[in-house]
Amino acid sequence: MSESAVRGLNRTGKSSLLAAGILASSAASANDDLLITARQIFNPIPSMAPAVKDNPITEEKVILGKTLFFDPRLSASQVISCNTCHNLGTGGVDAGPTSVGHRWQLGSRRAPTVYNAVFNVAQFWDGRAADLKAQASGPVQASIEMNATPARVLDTLNSMTGYVVMFGKAFPKDARPITFDNFAKAIEAFEATLITPGAPFDRYLKGDAYALSDQQKSGLKLFIDKGCASCHSGMNVGGQDYFPFGVVERPAASLLPSDDKGRFAVTKAPGDEYVFRSAPLRNVALRPPYFHSGQVWDLKQAVGVMSEVQLGVKLDDREKDDIVAFLNSLTGQLPKIDYPILPTRTDKTPKPSVDK
Amino acid sequence: MSESAVRGLNRTGKSSLLAAGILASSAASANDDLLITARQIFNPIPSMAPAVKDNPITEEKVILGKTLFFDPRLSASQVISCNTCHNLGTGGVDAGPTSVGHRWQLGSRRAPTVYNAVFNVAQFWDGRAADLKAQASGPVQASIEMNATPARVLDTLNSMTGYVVMFGKAFPKDARPITFDNFAKAIEAFEATLITPGAPFDRYLKGDAYALSDQQKSGLKLFIDKGCASCHSGMNVGGQDYFPFGVVERPAASLLPSDDKGRFAVTKAPGDEYVFRSAPLRNVALRPPYFHSGQVWDLKQAVGVMSEVQLGVKLDDREKDDIVAFLNSLTGQLPKIDYPILPTRTDKTPKPSVDK
Repeated sequence: MSESAVRGLNRTGKSSLLAAGILASSAASANDDLLITARQIFNPIPSMAPAVKDNPITEEKVILGKTLFFDPRLSASQVISCNTCHNLGTGGVDAGPTSVGHRWQLGSRRAPTVYNAVFNVAQFWDGRAADLKAQASGPVQASIEMNATPARVLDTLNSMTGYVVMFGKAFPKDARPITFDNFAKAIEAFEATLITPGAPFDRYLKGDAYALSDQQKSGLKLFIDKGCASCHSGMNVGGQDYFPFGVVERPAASLLPSDDKGRFAVTKAPGDEYVFRSAPLRNVALRPPYFHSGQVWDLKQAVGVMSEVQLGVKLDDREKDDIVAFLNSLTGQLPKIDYPILPTRTDKTPKPSVDK
Repeated sequence: MSESAVRGLNRTGKSSLLAAGILASSAASANDDLLITARQIFNPIPSMAPAVKDNPITEEKVILGKTLFFDPRLSASQVISCNTCHNLGTGGVDAGPTSVGHRWQLGSRRAPTVYNAVFNVAQFWDGRAADLKAQASGPVQASIEMNATPARVLDTLNSMTGYVVMFGKAFPKDARPITFDNFAKAIEAFEATLITPGAPFDRYLKGDAYALSDQQKSGLKLFIDKGCASCHSGMNVGGQDYFPFGVVERPAASLLPSDDKGRFAVTKAPGDEYVFRSAPLRNVALRPPYFHSGQVWDLKQAVGVMSEVQLGVKLDDREKDDIVAFLNSLTGQLPKIDYPILPTRTDKTPKPSVDK
């Protein structure tokens, strides 16, 4: 039964038990329809870390990866760690708009979250890294981020007994466990555990009809009906494919700077100009500012921008509030992290280099 | 019985049970003497956080303090937290030599460790803060460190429901729990828990004669006999009083830059030129580089410098090795820290300011 049909029933003024029964059952049916549709589009976050290609996840590898993730001595300055820009205490991102790197240089794009990143089709806003292993090897070398080199990373790791032991345990079959590839694999293994199951939306998808409020259900329906779910679907409610930013209308230059053509830089295909991986919306409420440019701090405003430039739809205030309520239902349970005690540096550990 | 007398006995060639008995008992007696002397000079780290003046330590206050300690959004750039320079994963300090702060400005002195800092006579290398509460209010405001203001800190804290709730629980009797003073008190409460009991030296002081190796005991004896313990004593093996750096001989300008007159800046007393709080040596092996200038990376070299410029003593290689072995016995058990999930920012949270 359609919404207008339900309204029609209401307008007849019938308040008999029969009418109430029809209403209740039609609402239940609408709810069932919504859940059936939602299940065709989205998947719940699993409670266990997923398997990762060519990189069996072991406890030893995860512990090593966590230690590396928090170790600032892997950067040239020895001030910046993975966690500096992908802070696990603030939704897996920094405060933005873009990240501060080596010598206070500013990045050009908002740091993507590491939480649930394992479920994305590829990594970075332009998908230039096929997986987390490939991603992990990037920022550590980028001159405006951590500004190290693979050789320096290996010198650093080889200089500390703690790392020599941990790599040996994490890669027991390797004759030389400390390699740049294994460094990236250990970080990937840790990041694969950074998943956030148990969001209200996950409980809803698993059949708990009361996990979402009526407003959140209305927001979910709008999210589907208006077309948001065309680009934001799957387990991460986004992150599963690439789309142009500005399908209907070009966003303001502050949101879409003309010099960043997105995926075009990766594929060189003319059709990929200003194309980006759709933003994964899991835990989106935890991590303003929004978009790759990080210029919108308010989630409701971000919803308004997206509906206009991507869908050509002008949402009213109530609709935006409902969608924001739905987006809030995507906040899951962040894993508990023991802050790692890092291996102690030795005389052989490269010295910090803050100046160049 | 003196060491030379024991050697004399050896030279007689007597290998009877009687001689062996005298040797064993004299060694035992020397060991007892060493322990008795050590107990007069040093104290073990307690297993529980000590009480702090005017700031009762509660679980709620410690949890709040930990959250603040790890929150980079308290700095103007929202990149730098207390933990950036006092990294709990690397002995409570950064990689040095001095700290990188707002806009990549470099500090002039090595970051002191927060571990066991509660046992120091006062805070900072020049003791300008009477306690951890006073210390905590400094770097957050320093323009070359976190570059915030008390007003900005309060705006930030008031903007987030998570902090409003946590301050209410930590300061239940206060009509307005969120104040700059309470912010500092919460950090002090957390830092008072950052103690590292259970070092081999602590077990030794408590009566376990086997907690130190023979080399470590030799190092302890040298540390006392040569005069190191005159300045490095008490619970923190240092940090208990102020002394000139360069008692006998002026250290190299790289170690003692002439423009940093230490405690003189605090007291303006001519006798306080180049006077500093003696370095607390707990966990010293975890945290090179050494001295307030952070220019010596090797602990053995640091021991050599100190013996020459402070005591006028040239230690031989074996003596330095033994003292380093003793210093290694000062490494305690670092507390387990759950990395905090930080309160989520809101539209009212001040935006990051990286440029000014």
